[in-house]
Amino acid sequence: MNLINETHDINLTSWVESANTTTDFPIQNLPFAVFRRKGSSEAFRGGVAIGDQVVDLAVVDAANIFSGLAQEAVHAANAPSLNEFMGMGQAHWSALRLALSQALRTGSAHQASFEAALIAQADIEFSLPCRIGDYTDFYTSIYHATAVGRLFRPDNPLLPNYKWVPIGYHGRSSSIDVSGQTFHRPNGQTKAPDAEIPSFGPCKRLDYELELGIYLGKGNKLGDAIAIEDAENHVFGLCVFNDWSARDLQAWEYQPLGPFLAKNFASTVSPWIVTTEALAPFKTNWHRDENDPQPLSYLDSTANREAGAFDIQMDVLLESEKMRTEGTPASKLSQSSFKHSYWTVAQMVTHHTVNGCNFLPGDMLGSGTQSGPEHEEAGSMLELSRGGKESITLNNGETRTFLNDGDKVIMRGWCEKDGFKRIGFGSVEGTILPAK
Amino acid sequence: MNLINETHDINLTSWVESANTTTDFPIQNLPFAVFRRKGSSEAFRGGVAIGDQVVDLAVVDAANIFSGLAQEAVHAANAPSLNEFMGMGQAHWSALRLALSQALRTGSAHQASFEAALIAQADIEFSLPCRIGDYTDFYTSIYHATAVGRLFRPDNPLLPNYKWVPIGYHGRSSSIDVSGQTFHRPNGQTKAPDAEIPSFGPCKRLDYELELGIYLGKGNKLGDAIAIEDAENHVFGLCVFNDWSARDLQAWEYQPLGPFLAKNFASTVSPWIVTTEALAPFKTNWHRDENDPQPLSYLDSTANREAGAFDIQMDVLLESEKMRTEGTPASKLSQSSFKHSYWTVAQMVTHHTVNGCNFLPGDMLGSGTQSGPEHEEAGSMLELSRGGKESITLNNGETRTFLNDGDKVIMRGWCEKDGFKRIGFGSVEGTILPAK
Repeated sequence: MNLINETHDINLTSWVESANTTTDFPIQNLPFAVFRRKGSSEAFRGGVAIGDQVVDLAVVDAANIFSGLAQEAVHAANAPSLNEFMGMGQAHWSALRLALSQALRTGSAHQASFEAALIAQADIEFSLPCRIGDYTDFYTSIYHATAVGRLFRPDNPLLPNYKWVPIGYHGRSSSIDVSGQTFHRPNGQTKAPDAEIPSFGPCKRLDYELELGIYLGKGNKLGDAIAIEDAENHVFGLCVFNDWSARDLQAWEYQPLGPFLAKNFASTVSPWIVTTEALAPFKTNWHRDENDPQPLSYLDSTANREAGAFDIQMDVLLESEKMRTEGTPASKLSQSSFKHSYWTVAQMVTHHTVNGCNFLPGDMLGSGTQSGPEHEEAGSMLELSRGGKESITLNNGETRTFLNDGDKVIMRGWCEKDGFKRIGFGSVEGTILPAK
Repeated sequence: MNLINETHDINLTSWVESANTTTDFPIQNLPFAVFRRKGSSEAFRGGVAIGDQVVDLAVVDAANIFSGLAQEAVHAANAPSLNEFMGMGQAHWSALRLALSQALRTGSAHQASFEAALIAQADIEFSLPCRIGDYTDFYTSIYHATAVGRLFRPDNPLLPNYKWVPIGYHGRSSSIDVSGQTFHRPNGQTKAPDAEIPSFGPCKRLDYELELGIYLGKGNKLGDAIAIEDAENHVFGLCVFNDWSARDLQAWEYQPLGPFLAKNFASTVSPWIVTTEALAPFKTNWHRDENDPQPLSYLDSTANREAGAFDIQMDVLLESEKMRTEGTPASKLSQSSFKHSYWTVAQMVTHHTVNGCNFLPGDMLGSGTQSGPEHEEAGSMLELSRGGKESITLNNGETRTFLNDGDKVIMRGWCEKDGFKRIGFGSVEGTILPAK
C-alpha cells in the first residue's frame, strides 16, 4: 500500500495562514479529534486540525459540499465518537483527507464555506476521539524491555521469547482519558524488599511511560487473522500516549499474570489522531539485525518491509508545581523515536489476530515504552533514574527519581524528513493530584 | 446488606407450572438475559427465566403493570443490552425482582397479562446480556494457582504475593460471546522444551477453565475506591464462564506480562445472570485459615465476613463428536464450588478499585478457574491431566489430555441449601472447530 499522494506535497499551502508557519498541523497533516467549544454544553463532534484552528466537521457535513465517499465519511465523523468513521476503511479515509486538503488549499473555491467551519483551537475542549472497546499494551522497545528486565530480574533481563513474540498484554479501557487528565496518586499494596509483609498506602514510585497509541480502524471477524500484508489497512491512525505506571505496586503484583493495578488507574491519550496516511512518508526500512532471529513468516512482510514502521520522534517534559509558580519552562527529560522499535505496527496487528482474536473499530494498541538505545533516550523515570538509584536534575535545579504530586508530564510527537513537511501530533498532558 | 426477603421463601410457587418442578429457574431465582425468538429478526430485549419459559420484558414494559422503581427498571431492561438497568443499582433491582416475584406467584392478579409475556425457552436465542466494556480475570482458587504454578514453575508453585493480593489481569472483551459459541482452534507460536526455536501452527493443548463471571452493576468514579463494606452493592449478578485457554501458547508467551493470545481467541458466558439478591441465601461464612496471613484491612470486611462469599457449585462436562454421533451422554469431568475460593467477590471488587480504577455498568470479572482441594475437583484439563501427562478417560471409553476438534464443553452452576429452593445458572456451552 503506497499512500503517498498529492496531499503530502511539501509545496501545498493553506488559506488558513497559521497552517503555513511553524505548526504541528500544516495542511499535510489533517489529524482528527472530537471536540466542542470550551465550557459549552454543545454536542461533541469530529474536527480536523489546521494550523491553530479546527475544522468543525458538523458544519462541513451540514454544508453538504463534499460528495461520494468523502461526504459519507464526513457525515460519519459528525458524531460524538469517531468509531463509525474509523470502521469505514481506507477508501473513505483517503477520500475525506483529499477533499479536506483540496478545500483548505490556497485558492480553494470552498474557502468561504470553510471559514464558517473554523474555530480557534484555543477555544475548544476535547473528549476521547472514540469509544475504546479494548486496549492492548505492547512492549516493543527492546531497550526498554532490557533495562526494565534488568531491574526486575537482574539475572535474566531479556526473556527468551522477546525476539520471537511481540509481547503484549491487555489493559484497561475505562480509565483512559484525553490530554488534560488529572488523577490522584494511586493507593495500593507494596512490599519493600526487606519487609516481612506488604503494606498499604500511596504509591511511592509513580512513573510515566512514553508511548504511541495505535487506533484500529476496520476490524476483523472473530476467527479471521489479519495477514501482515493487510495489517496497515486496518490501522486508522496514531496518537501520543502516556501509560502511567506505579512501579512499587507493579513489582509486588505482577507475577505471574502481569501488571494490573500498577497500570489501570489512569492512561492519557493526546487528542489528535494523526492518520496512517499522513504518516506514510515517514516510514523506515524496517529490518532485523542479521545476528537476531528473523521473524516467523506470519510476522514477516517480505513484500513491504516498511509496513507500519514509522520514524516518529517523541519527547517528554516535566513541569513541576514550583516551575508553574516561578514561571520556569518545563524540563525536558528525554527524546526517542519509534524507529527503534523491535516490532512494527503491522507486526503488532497481525500477531494480535493470528489466533483469531477480533478487533473492533476504535480499539487501541499501546506501543509500549519507546526507549532508544542510549540511556538518555529512556521513556520512563524507572530507566532514567536506574530504578530510583540516581536522581534526575530538572532545569530549575529540582531533582526527581519518580513523580511528585503536582507534577505535570507533557509528551509530544512529530515526524521530520527531507522533502516533506514536518507534521506533529500535538501533546498529551496529565497532572498528578495527591493520594486520597 | 441482608437481601433475604419474601422472594426467597421456599414455599413460594408460581402459576407457571414448570417453575414448580425440578428446574434451574424456580420463582426464587428470576435471572436476567437478553433474547429474541430463535431465527427471527426481532430486536433483542431483556427477559427473565421462570421454569421453562422466559418473561418477555418488552411486553411487561408495554403493559405498564408495575409502578415506581419497578416500572423504571423494567423499562430500562427492555433494551438490547442491560447496561442501563444494571447501572441503576440495588433499589431498582430489588423492586423489579419483588414485582416479578409477586406477578408470577400462584394466585397473582397479573397472571392474565403475564401469560401474554411468556415465550418457551426452547423457542428463543440469546445475545450477550450487556456490553462488556472491560473484563478482568482473577485467579482466586489457591488450588488452581498451586497446581498450575507447579506445572509452569516446579520450584516455585505459589508465589509470595498470592496470599496477600487478589491476583488479576485484564482480559479481552471483544471475543466474549454467549453460550453456543463455536470457534476455530487458535493458531500461534509455541516452543517445545527441547526445540531450539519456536514454531507456528494450531494449538496442541487447548483447554477450558471453569469460572464464574461477575457482572458489575453500579460503577464508580475514576479515583473513588469502593470500600469492602460497599462492594456487594456494586455487583449485579453472576454467570458461569468458560475462559478457553491455549496452554502451549501460554507457556511460551506469558512472561513477563501475562497470558495474552492464549486467552483472547474466545471466552463464553452462560446466557442468564443470576442476581446477587437471588444468591443471598447461599453465602458462606468466609474466613482465612489462622495459619495464613489475614487480609490487609482494606480487604477485610470484619462487619460482614460473608460479603461476596457464595457457595456456588459448578461442574463441567465434555461431549465429543463421537458421543453426539452415538447418542452417548456427555461425560462429566469434574465438580467444584466457589466456596473454596481464596478471595471473595467483594474482595475482588474492592481490590480492583483501591487504586482509583473505575468500573462501568456491565463490566465483568472472571473468578479464575475454580478448582477445589481434591485433584478430582480441578477446573481445567491442564490440572486433570497433570500437564498432559495422564490421560482422562471419558464415559464412552475415549481419552483426552486436552480438547479435540468437535468437542463441546458444557459447564453448569447451581446453589443448594437446607431451607431454600435450589436455584440454577443454566449452562454455558461451546464447541471447537478445526484450526483455519
